[in-house]
Amino acid sequence: MKIVIDMMGGDNGIEVTIGAVNEFYKRHSEVELFLVGDENILNIEFKDIYNIHVVPSQTVLAMDVDPMTALKEKTSSLMVAVDTFIANSCDALISAGSTGATLSAAVFKIKRLKGISRPGLITPFPSMIKGKKYVVCDLGANNANTKEDLLNFALMASTYYQVRYNEPSPRVHLLSNGTEEEKGSPLGKEVYPLLKDCPDINFQGNIEARDPLFGVTDVVVCDGYSGNIYLKATEGGCKVMSELIKKSFKKNIFTKLGYLFAKKGFDDLRETMDYQSVGGAMLVGVNGIVVKAHGNSNIKSFLSALEGAYDLAYGEVLKKIKEKLEQYGN
Amino acid sequence: MKIVIDMMGGDNGIEVTIGAVNEFYKRHSEVELFLVGDENILNIEFKDIYNIHVVPSQTVLAMDVDPMTALKEKTSSLMVAVDTFIANSCDALISAGSTGATLSAAVFKIKRLKGISRPGLITPFPSMIKGKKYVVCDLGANNANTKEDLLNFALMASTYYQVRYNEPSPRVHLLSNGTEEEKGSPLGKEVYPLLKDCPDINFQGNIEARDPLFGVTDVVVCDGYSGNIYLKATEGGCKVMSELIKKSFKKNIFTKLGYLFAKKGFDDLRETMDYQSVGGAMLVGVNGIVVKAHGNSNIKSFLSALEGAYDLAYGEVLKKIKEKLEQYGN
Repeated sequence: MKIVIDMMGGDNGIEVTIGAVNEFYKRHSEVELFLVGDENILNIEFKDIYNIHVVPSQTVLAMDVDPMTALKEKTSSLMVAVDTFIANSCDALISAGSTGATLSAAVFKIKRLKGISRPGLITPFPSMIKGKKYVVCDLGANNANTKEDLLNFALMASTYYQVRYNEPSPRVHLLSNGTEEEKGSPLGKEVYPLLKDCPDINFQGNIEARDPLFGVTDVVVCDGYSGNIYLKATEGGCKVMSELIKKSFKKNIFTKLGYLFAKKGFDDLRETMDYQSVGGAMLVGVNGIVVKAHGNSNIKSFLSALEGAYDLAYGEVLKKIKEKLEQYGN
Repeated sequence: MKIVIDMMGGDNGIEVTIGAVNEFYKRHSEVELFLVGDENILNIEFKDIYNIHVVPSQTVLAMDVDPMTALKEKTSSLMVAVDTFIANSCDALISAGSTGATLSAAVFKIKRLKGISRPGLITPFPSMIKGKKYVVCDLGANNANTKEDLLNFALMASTYYQVRYNEPSPRVHLLSNGTEEEKGSPLGKEVYPLLKDCPDINFQGNIEARDPLFGVTDVVVCDGYSGNIYLKATEGGCKVMSELIKKSFKKNIFTKLGYLFAKKGFDDLRETMDYQSVGGAMLVGVNGIVVKAHGNSNIKSFLSALEGAYDLAYGEVLKKIKEKLEQYGN
């Protein structure tokens, strides 16, 4: 297996990606790694290490770079990573850089799969049930979608879930403003019958945005704009509660004491809802496993994205997605 | 002031609305109340009480009633309440019944304001800053909207905020998938310049769905479909965290002890994020103050919706909304 890593893309510097690679290498030294970035720094850590290649790049793209500008900056770590991916027929590529730039580099250079006009971003979410994850697609690769896009998201996200969580028939729901069949946006109403009639999807109907976190679904399908609202509103709700909890405990000496007693319970809570351990977001619908780690990744979350990419490559998710799409005449 | 109350609409029975009315009457016996529902029960509590009228109705609409069917059920508590509202030129109407039925009864009988093609639902949200609320419009009265709808939502929700929270120039944000001006759904991109150029709105640009809870805005404008996703995802995030907290405390004897020590802090947390104390949702854009209390209301939350309706009527929100809309040639 061959994985390319953009070592420069994240907000928190190269120490984060180096730390994560060191840990990943301990576990999977059989994987050939192409580390793209500042060769002066990378050579200190990784020169002449078995199965690791340092690939030099010159610049780093800004997080808010315009995607078209990004494509022209050929010596940037992201674009060199993409070229390395293609030249070495790699299995996966990971970057913590700009989502828009990663998306356009993947679409223009790695190319879309046959029949896909708009790739989607898919990521696992933790749920209230410890260890149980669900995935949502599209989380914001697009700001407008067609019904064909959503059917493709359902097919690809089901395959992703099968590979990653070893579940042969993942439950698929359509994000909506009500559970009844007649609810939904105009787009949702068009998509519903397509999902219902698709024999290769275990479609369970509409789901409201408050419910997935409770562990009642495996795959949530939506357009990229709604998915982005869903992701960020959920994150906001969880984050504000967790900050209020911290504040509650700091109130006075009794509440601080309370924290010491309750700590074990809260460590479990943190573990259940740990967004850092769910891995990065995969861009599905392009001809490669492209994983976008969070821009703000720390070692733990970048490592988790690396492990996610490894699992997906190991489970041959791309081959399975292609087979699934071909079945539908794509 | 005259307020009509559908006493039968909620999930939790007439005891809830009776309890809330008793409490409200203690505080505001100067308000003339029309209580619509089962006269046998209501007369036991409210016969011959100053300023309270019992108005008999026969049936109760189901929560999932089809809006067109609802309009035909003329002896239902909701439809009698609407007729009472019109016949007595009342200031406000409250129901905890079906949102769809309330919406269509209001549109067909109370009528829309001049220039409004789609009324919106607006409700206050608690934020992380204790006592600071923000409002969102539309929360789901519609499943598709035009740019004109969103401009009207911004004008009406700003007026609501001014009246209810005594803030002369509420900050208005457009819900979007990024903060930059060029972000947004196709609809959002059309609306942005309208909001920016409107001199009567304190427009502050786009806001992402994770941020309003932190108290950085006063009014969030969005289409009804996105607003519904926003509302329910936020609710889901907060709810799952709060259930996990409860579970954490129940873990063992130490965590239970921890709870006792931390209780004061958590009581504050509960109060900060108390959705029951924010009142019901107002349907803006119809020719009356129509407030939809949560179907699952208890005495506290129904009372809060009643108090909200009172504040809005007292602050002459309807008159001010009409003036605002007229200014814009509606």
